[in-house]
Amino acid sequence: MLLNVLNYVGIAVFAASGALIGVRKRLDAFGVWTVAALTAVGGGVARDVLLGIDPPASFQHWQNLTVASATAFLVFLFHPQFSVLRMSVVVLDALGMGLFASTGALTALHHGASPLASALIGITTAAGGGILRDILVNEVPLLLQSTDLYAIPALTGAAVTVASSWWGATDTRSLIAGAGLASGFRLLALWQGWRVPVAPQNVIGRARDGLVRLIRRR
Amino acid sequence: MLLNVLNYVGIAVFAASGALIGVRKRLDAFGVWTVAALTAVGGGVARDVLLGIDPPASFQHWQNLTVASATAFLVFLFHPQFSVLRMSVVVLDALGMGLFASTGALTALHHGASPLASALIGITTAAGGGILRDILVNEVPLLLQSTDLYAIPALTGAAVTVASSWWGATDTRSLIAGAGLASGFRLLALWQGWRVPVAPQNVIGRARDGLVRLIRRR
Amino acid sequence: MLLNVLNYVGIAVFAASGALIGVRKRLDAFGVWTVAALTAVGGGVARDVLLGIDPPASFQHWQNLTVASATAFLVFLFHPQFSVLRMSVVVLDALGMGLFASTGALTALHHGASPLASALIGITTAAGGGILRDILVNEVPLLLQSTDLYAIPALTGAAVTVASSWWGATDTRSLIAGAGLASGFRLLALWQGWRVPVAPQNVIGRARDGLVRLIRRR
Repeated sequence: MLLNVLNYVGIAVFAASGALIGVRKRLDAFGVWTVAALTAVGGGVARDVLLGIDPPASFQHWQNLTVASATAFLVFLFHPQFSVLRMSVVVLDALGMGLFASTGALTALHHGASPLASALIGITTAAGGGILRDILVNEVPLLLQSTDLYAIPALTGAAVTVASSWWGATDTRSLIAGAGLASGFRLLALWQGWRVPVAPQNVIGRARDGLVRLIRRR
Repeated sequence: MLLNVLNYVGIAVFAASGALIGVRKRLDAFGVWTVAALTAVGGGVARDVLLGIDPPASFQHWQNLTVASATAFLVFLFHPQFSVLRMSVVVLDALGMGLFASTGALTALHHGASPLASALIGITTAAGGGILRDILVNEVPLLLQSTDLYAIPALTGAAVTVASSWWGATDTRSLIAGAGLASGFRLLALWQGWRVPVAPQNVIGRARDGLVRLIRRR
Repeated sequence: MLLNVLNYVGIAVFAASGALIGVRKRLDAFGVWTVAALTAVGGGVARDVLLGIDPPASFQHWQNLTVASATAFLVFLFHPQFSVLRMSVVVLDALGMGLFASTGALTALHHGASPLASALIGITTAAGGGILRDILVNEVPLLLQSTDLYAIPALTGAAVTVASSWWGATDTRSLIAGAGLASGFRLLALWQGWRVPVAPQNVIGRARDGLVRLIRRR
C-alpha cells in the first residue's frame, strides 16, 4: 500500500520534471505531455524491455500513465507556481529515485537476472526516464554532467537491495534498506554540496613536474 | 492486398522524409540511407520490441527495407525534384500515419496487450520513426513542437481501432475505421491550420489580475 | 580463447573512444564511465534486445562491464597520453568492429533470425555503441557523416559471415572470413582515404544543362 503510494509519488515527480522542461522548451501541449509521460515511465519501460516483460507494465495498466498525465496537465497550466515548490520537488524526487532503483533491482532478481544485472537494471529504472527526457529535448543528459550526485546513490541503493535479497532478507526489508539508503545518500549529497570530479588535466605531466621540482630543491 | 500496397506507400513516404532531412544535413550516402531506413521501419521495430516479437518483422523480411532503400536512393539522387511533390507527400504521409497507427494497435491486441497498451503501441508505431529520425539528426522532435496536429490524429485512430475491435468488429472494419479517421482528421487539421497550444504564461496571475480589475471597475 | 581476447580488446577500444569523448565534453567521472560503458556494450545490448535475449549478456555477466570500466578509469586519469596512441587505437577499433559485426550476425543466425535480419543485427552490434555514444553527448552520429568508411565494411563482414554460415561453413571459419574482411576493408579504406559521397546538388538540372550545351555546340 505505502509502496503503491510512493510509486505514484515517484511517477508524479518525474512527470513534473519532464513537463517543466517541456514548457521551458516551448513545446506544445502534446509535446509537454509526451516528455512528461516518457520521463515518468521511461525507466520502467526500459527495465521491462531488458527483462523481456512484454508489453511493459506502464503500457499494460492505466494507473502510471494516468498519474503522469494528470501531473503534466497541472504543470502545463500552473508552471510558474511549480517553481515555488522547488525544495519539496527535490526531496520527493530523491524518494522516487530511491524507490525506483530498489523496485527495479528486485523485479530483475525475481525474473532470474544475475545480481550484477539486477543492480544495473535498478539504476536503469531510476535514471532511464531522465536520460530519455534530456535526449528528447536535445540536451546532454544532466545525469552525465558534473552536477549533484544522482546515479551513485541510485547504484548504491540498487546494490544494497540486491545484496540484502541475496543474503536472505525479505522483499520488504530489501526494499526499505535500498530505497532508504539511496534517498538518504542523495539528500545528504545535496545538503553537503558533494560533486563528482571531472577528469584531471594531465596526471602524468603534473607528477613529472612535481618530481622535477622535488629534485631541484635538493 | 490493398493493405500491403498502403503499407509500402507508408514505408516509402516515411523513408523519403528521413532521406530529405539526411540530405539537408549533408550526411553521406550511407548516413542518408540509415536515417531513411530508421525513419521508415523505426516505429514498427519499436512496436515489435515492446511486444516481444524477436527479431522485429522489418529485420526478418526483406520487403520493407527494400522499399525504404529504393526510396532513399531516389531521394539521394533527385532531392531537388522532391520538394515539388510537397503536397502529395503530405497527403501520402497522412495515409501512412493512419495505417501504421491502426495496424500497430491491432497487432498489439492480437499479441494479448490490453486496450490501453494497444492504443499506445499504435501511436508508437505511427510516430516512433519520426522521433528516431529527429534524434539521429540532433533536433528536438518535430512531433513535440507546436506545429500541425500529428500525434492526436494518430492516437484517435489507434483508439478507434482498439474500440471497434473490442466491441466485436472484424479486423478489416476496425482498420478502415481507425486508419480512415486518423488520416482524415490529420488532413482536416492541416487544411484548417489547427494547432496545439503551448503552455499559457501565468494562469493564476492573469486570473488574479482579471479579478482585481473587475473589482476596481465596480 | 582468441575470440574471447579479441572480444575484450573490442570492448576496451570502444570504451576508450566513449571515455575520450566524455572527457572532451567535460562530463564528470560518472558521466565518463556511463558513456564509455554504453559505447562498449551498447551494440551488444541492442543485439540482445532485438533477439529477445533477456537480460542482455553484458548485463548478466561481469566480464564485459569490468573491462569497459577499467578502460574508462585509465582514460579518465591519463587522457592526454591516449591521444599519442591514436594509430594503434584506430587499428584495434577496426579489429573490434569486424569481430562484433561477425559475432553479432552469427548470434542472430543461432537464434533463428533470417539471413537478412542476421546481417542487419551484425551491423547493429558493431555500430550501435558508437551511435548511442554520439546521441548521449548530443552530436549527429559520426557514422552518418561523410568521414571514413565504417558501416559499409561492417555490413560487408556481417554479410560474408552470414553467407559462409548459410553455405555450410563452420562457425570459426565464418567468423574469420567475416571479421577479417570487415577489418581489412576498413583499414584499406582508411589507408586509401576512401569516402562515401554526399548527395549531388541537382542531377536532373545538370544533365539538362549538359544536354543544352551539347546541342548548342553543334
